[in-house]
Amino acid sequence: MAEPLRLGIAGLGTVGSGVVRIVQRHARMLESRAGRPVTISAVSARNRDKDRGLRLNGYAWEDDPVALALRDDVDVLVELVGGADGPAKAATEAAIAAGKDVVTANKAMLALHGQALALAAEARGCAIRFEAAVAGGIPVIRALGESLAANEIQRVMGVMNGTCNYILTRMQSAGLAYEEVFREASDLGYLEADPTLDVGGIDASHKLAILAAIAFGTQVDFDAVDLEGIERITIDDIRAAADMGFRIKLLGVAQMTGRGLEQRMSPCLVPASSPLGQLENAMNMVVLEGDAVGQIVLRGAGAGEGPTASAVMGDVMDLARGRRGPVFGQPAATLARAQPASSTVPAPYYLRMALLDKPGALARIATVLGEAGISIDRMRQYSHDDPAAPVLIVTHKTRRSALKDAIAAMPATGVLASDPVAIRIEEV
Amino acid sequence: MAEPLRLGIAGLGTVGSGVVRIVQRHARMLESRAGRPVTISAVSARNRDKDRGLRLNGYAWEDDPVALALRDDVDVLVELVGGADGPAKAATEAAIAAGKDVVTANKAMLALHGQALALAAEARGCAIRFEAAVAGGIPVIRALGESLAANEIQRVMGVMNGTCNYILTRMQSAGLAYEEVFREASDLGYLEADPTLDVGGIDASHKLAILAAIAFGTQVDFDAVDLEGIERITIDDIRAAADMGFRIKLLGVAQMTGRGLEQRMSPCLVPASSPLGQLENAMNMVVLEGDAVGQIVLRGAGAGEGPTASAVMGDVMDLARGRRGPVFGQPAATLARAQPASSTVPAPYYLRMALLDKPGALARIATVLGEAGISIDRMRQYSHDDPAAPVLIVTHKTRRSALKDAIAAMPATGVLASDPVAIRIEEV
Repeated sequence: MAEPLRLGIAGLGTVGSGVVRIVQRHARMLESRAGRPVTISAVSARNRDKDRGLRLNGYAWEDDPVALALRDDVDVLVELVGGADGPAKAATEAAIAAGKDVVTANKAMLALHGQALALAAEARGCAIRFEAAVAGGIPVIRALGESLAANEIQRVMGVMNGTCNYILTRMQSAGLAYEEVFREASDLGYLEADPTLDVGGIDASHKLAILAAIAFGTQVDFDAVDLEGIERITIDDIRAAADMGFRIKLLGVAQMTGRGLEQRMSPCLVPASSPLGQLENAMNMVVLEGDAVGQIVLRGAGAGEGPTASAVMGDVMDLARGRRGPVFGQPAATLARAQPASSTVPAPYYLRMALLDKPGALARIATVLGEAGISIDRMRQYSHDDPAAPVLIVTHKTRRSALKDAIAAMPATGVLASDPVAIRIEEV
Repeated sequence: MAEPLRLGIAGLGTVGSGVVRIVQRHARMLESRAGRPVTISAVSARNRDKDRGLRLNGYAWEDDPVALALRDDVDVLVELVGGADGPAKAATEAAIAAGKDVVTANKAMLALHGQALALAAEARGCAIRFEAAVAGGIPVIRALGESLAANEIQRVMGVMNGTCNYILTRMQSAGLAYEEVFREASDLGYLEADPTLDVGGIDASHKLAILAAIAFGTQVDFDAVDLEGIERITIDDIRAAADMGFRIKLLGVAQMTGRGLEQRMSPCLVPASSPLGQLENAMNMVVLEGDAVGQIVLRGAGAGEGPTASAVMGDVMDLARGRRGPVFGQPAATLARAQPASSTVPAPYYLRMALLDKPGALARIATVLGEAGISIDRMRQYSHDDPAAPVLIVTHKTRRSALKDAIAAMPATGVLASDPVAIRIEEV
C-alpha cells in the first residue's frame, strides 16, 4: 500500500474541526481518489479540554503548533490558527524550515508575509497551498493559477466578504439602516472580534492582494490596496442606487494598467441584473477576466465549516497526489514588485447630493462638473418636502481625480445642503 | 534552461487555431509560469492550403494525425480533430501507445470511449486531459476532480450547450417560435453540421456523462443518459413558464440515488431568479454540489476560440508543470460500473393542457392527478377565446412514473383538447 500523507492540524476552530470531520468521514474515498491514505497524526489548539464534538483520541496532542509542525510523524502542516503573525507564522516557518509542506486558510498571513514565506518555502522545495484563504469553498486560486495559466489576466474582481454582502443585501431587502443591520449581524455572530476586519474591508483586501499576486505575477502587496469599507453606506444610497438599476457591493478590483497595478476595495455600484448585482446574503463571487477565456464567474459560500474545510482538503488532496509547485504560480524570486497605481482607470460615477431650493441650483452643479470635464449620463431630481432637493447624477466615464476636483469645487456654488456622496460604478 | 514541452496539434479549426495563437502570443509568459518553454513542433489538418490567418511555417506539417502523434519531436498530442471515432481516436490511441500524453477537447470520444482510453493511458503511464471537452473555458473538470476531491458529490447539473440556451432565451426575449429561432441560429452558424447534436441534447449529454464519471467514480456511460432535446418546446411553454416565475433550460442533471446513477438531459423549469434561470444567450453554467462545499456555481463561455483554447492550454500548462494523474480522478481500473437509474428522484412538475369548455373539466383532471397520488401546488386557468381553456398546473413533488400514469389516464376523461405537456421543475 502507498505511504499515507500524514497531517498535523494546528487550530481546531470551525475550519479545523471541519477538516478532522472530513478525514474521518471520508477516509476510504480520500484514499481511492488520492491513491494513498490521508491521515491525521497530531492536532494542536489553545484549549485541550474544550468539547468540540470530535473524536480526537487517536491523535497526538501538542500545545504548541511549532512542536506540531516539527513532529516526525507530520508530513504536512495544516495551519488553521489564523492571525498574520504569532503562532500561525511561527508554525508555518518551522514547517518550512523542516522541509514540510503547508496548507493554510490564513489570508492575513499571506497578504502580509506571503512573499517572504514563498521565498523561504521555495528555497526549501516546500509547497504552501491556500485555496481556503480566498472565498472559502470557491476554487478561485486553482482557477486563476492553473486553469487560466495561459491567459494574460485583465481584471480580477469579487465580493469576498460574506458579512459585508449580508449587511448590504439585508439593508436593501428590509429597508433598514446600516447601524441596525450591523447590530443584527453582530448578534448572529457574523462579525469578526474586530468588526473593522469585515466592514472596514480589510479581510476582503487581504484576499484581493493574494489574487492580484497570482493574476499579475507580482509580489503580494496588501499595503497598496486602496481601501474603503462599507461603514458610510446609507439606506438612502441603497435605495437611490436601486432606483437607477444598481446594487451596492463591497467590490474588490485588481487590474494592471499602463501606470501600474491598481488594487481597489470599495463600495461600488454594479448593475442589478449582473451576476454580482444578484449576489445575495453571505455568498461570495469572484469574476476572472482573461484575454483568451473572456469572463469566468465563480459563486459559492465564502466561509463556514464545510466550504472552507473542503478547500483545505482540496489542497491536501493535491499534495497527496504529488502535485506541487510555486506558491504564487511562478517562482517567488521571479515575481515583480508592482508599481502601485491608484484608480487611474476611468469609470462612471454615481453622485447623490441634496441641493438647496434655489433657482439655478442644478445648473451650477452641472457647470462645476462640466468645468472638470465630467459629462452627465443620467440625472434625477426627486420631489421633496424638505427644503433640500435630492438629486442623483450618473456621470459618463471620468477619472477619479477629475471627480475629486469637481466635488472640491461644489461648496463654492452655495447650493449644497450637505456633502455629496460619490460611488464608483464598476462595469461588470 | 529546462527542456521545452513540445506539442503536436491535430486539427486547425477554431480551437486549434486559438491554441496556436496563444502559444505564439504568450511564449514568454507561458515559460515563466510553467518553468519551461511550451513549443509547437508540428501540426496537422485536413487542408494544408487553407488560409487560417496563422503563421505555421515554423512547424512541421503532417497530413495524418497518427503520424503527428508518433513524431519524435512531439511530447504531447493536442487532439482537436473531433468526432468520437476516426482520426481523432486513431491519433489518441497512437499517442498513448507511444507513451505520450494527450490533451483533447473531444467530448464525443470521451463519452463513448473514455473508459477504454483511460485504461490504455493509465497502463502506459500517460495522462489524458480534457478540460476543454466540457463547458469550454469554465474550469469544471478541475473543480470537480481536484478542488472538490474531498467532497462526496451529491449532484452535478448544468446548462452545457450554448446553442440551446441561445435558442431558448431568444424565444423568450423576442417572443418567437422555435422554428424561427432555429433558423436564425442556423444562419448565424451556431448549429453543428448535424443540428440534432445540439438541439437533440446529444452534445450536452456527452458532457454530462463525463462529469458524472468524475463526480461519482463511475465508468463513463453515455448510453445511460435519459435524453430529451428542446425540439418540442413551444413559445406557449416559454410564456406560461415565465408567467409562473420560471425559465426553461436544457438542463443536465447527474446524481447518485439509492437505486443507482441517474443521468438526465432534458428541458427543465428552473426559478427565473436562480443563477441558472438568469443564464442568457450562449453562456454555459455548471452547478456542483458536495457534502462539504455546498453549492458552487461556475459560469462562462462554453464554446468559441478563446475560451476553448484557454482550457486546452490550461491542461497543457499542467502537463508542462509535471502535474499528471488518473484520467477520471482515480484509476480507471477502480471505477465502478454504475447501475443506471431512470428518474427516481421525485420533483415538482409543470403541466400545460388545453381543456374543453365543459362543466367539471378541471375537476376531472384534478381527480386523475389525485388518484395517481399527485397533489397540486398551483393552478391557473386563463381566460380564452378558443373553445379550449389553457390550464397550467404546478404539482407538488412526485415521481415521474406517477405522472406518466396520470397523463396516460387523462384522455379517458374526455376533456382534453390536446396532449398535455409535462416538464420537470428542477430545484436549483
